[in-house]
Amino acid sequence: MRIITISREFGSGGREIGKRIADILQMDYYDREILTAISEKTSLDEKYIEATLNSGLFRNFNISFGRTFAYPTGNADALALLTHQHQIIKSIAEKGNDFVIVGRSADVILEEYRPFNVFVYADMADRIRRCRERSGDKDVKDSYLKREIKRIDKSRRDSHAIISGYNWGDKMGYHLCVNTTGLEIKPLAPLVASFAENYFKSMSK
Amino acid sequence: MRIITISREFGSGGREIGKRIADILQMDYYDREILTAISEKTSLDEKYIEATLNSGLFRNFNISFGRTFAYPTGNADALALLTHQHQIIKSIAEKGNDFVIVGRSADVILEEYRPFNVFVYADMADRIRRCRERSGDKDVKDSYLKREIKRIDKSRRDSHAIISGYNWGDKMGYHLCVNTTGLEIKPLAPLVASFAENYFKSMSK
Repeated sequence: MRIITISREFGSGGREIGKRIADILQMDYYDREILTAISEKTSLDEKYIEATLNSGLFRNFNISFGRTFAYPTGNADALALLTHQHQIIKSIAEKGNDFVIVGRSADVILEEYRPFNVFVYADMADRIRRCRERSGDKDVKDSYLKREIKRIDKSRRDSHAIISGYNWGDKMGYHLCVNTTGLEIKPLAPLVASFAENYFKSMSK
Repeated sequence: MRIITISREFGSGGREIGKRIADILQMDYYDREILTAISEKTSLDEKYIEATLNSGLFRNFNISFGRTFAYPTGNADALALLTHQHQIIKSIAEKGNDFVIVGRSADVILEEYRPFNVFVYADMADRIRRCRERSGDKDVKDSYLKREIKRIDKSRRDSHAIISGYNWGDKMGYHLCVNTTGLEIKPLAPLVASFAENYFKSMSK
């Protein structure tokens, strides 16, 4: 089974790279599908699940764990949702199909399957530009987008820290780190896919 | 003019990737050629030049600069050699030929030419193995190799810090970061070359 995980800074174009790689290599693709699965399991609203997982409320979890049970409610919810997410990601792998998965610390959760781990990043100006295009609102302020980007990156970093010895974005935790600054996303996808194929060929020896 | 700079952790196989990319893309290649050029300019021995540039003696240079002229002699030599190296690298670019250059903070020195910057890295066990093979001495101790690897990486980090706002190895300073852990070097070179070609195509638009 071949698994590719894509971790990415918010606004770097990593999700698009992941989607395109899945098309190129004809692999299953998981991203928001995970939120839908959690929603089915918990009967919670997808938007609530997403907001809670992105809230960064659990930022001190790894420090307070084992010392106190006095989490704010938000932390308990986030923790329960992370646990569901963890189980769902594991169960996807247990199906045995090749797949690409974006975000959600899948690089760490699926470590035993030796996935090919990619990190996608870009400079802040580029990410602000991409987020503005995506929002469809050309009047939204740079300062607002920058704050949102930093907040979401922080929640990704924090939830990653709970389960991994490597920091989110530390290149040692990835096989390939791709800077998309100033580049079109589309032509990057087959290049990353070639690195992944070389890796899987090498692993199968 | 197309320039590719390869920065690399000691023992990661980065030099081989650089050499192969130059062959694939039919570009000039610079690595030890720079030491030869410094030697011709200064009448110093190449081995002395290399040892001084790798000595890490100038580690506090960026801190003490402007505050004191009381460098140890080694620092003054290293600084003079870095200055020569800087000029030689600039003069290579002024020739106008496409080229690949390995190490020597060329990513920063040649910034105005918008080079494609690659960082090559690997985990410590892999780098120790590669250094042992390269040394041709299978009895050399792991602890010795590890110390040497750390020392040389440190001198690279320090000499980079003198001239750059980015830390050596900080992925934001590179277009692509390639982890060679567990992989053969040879098949990686054309993959990196493809990323470089995509970058140059995009820059020429």
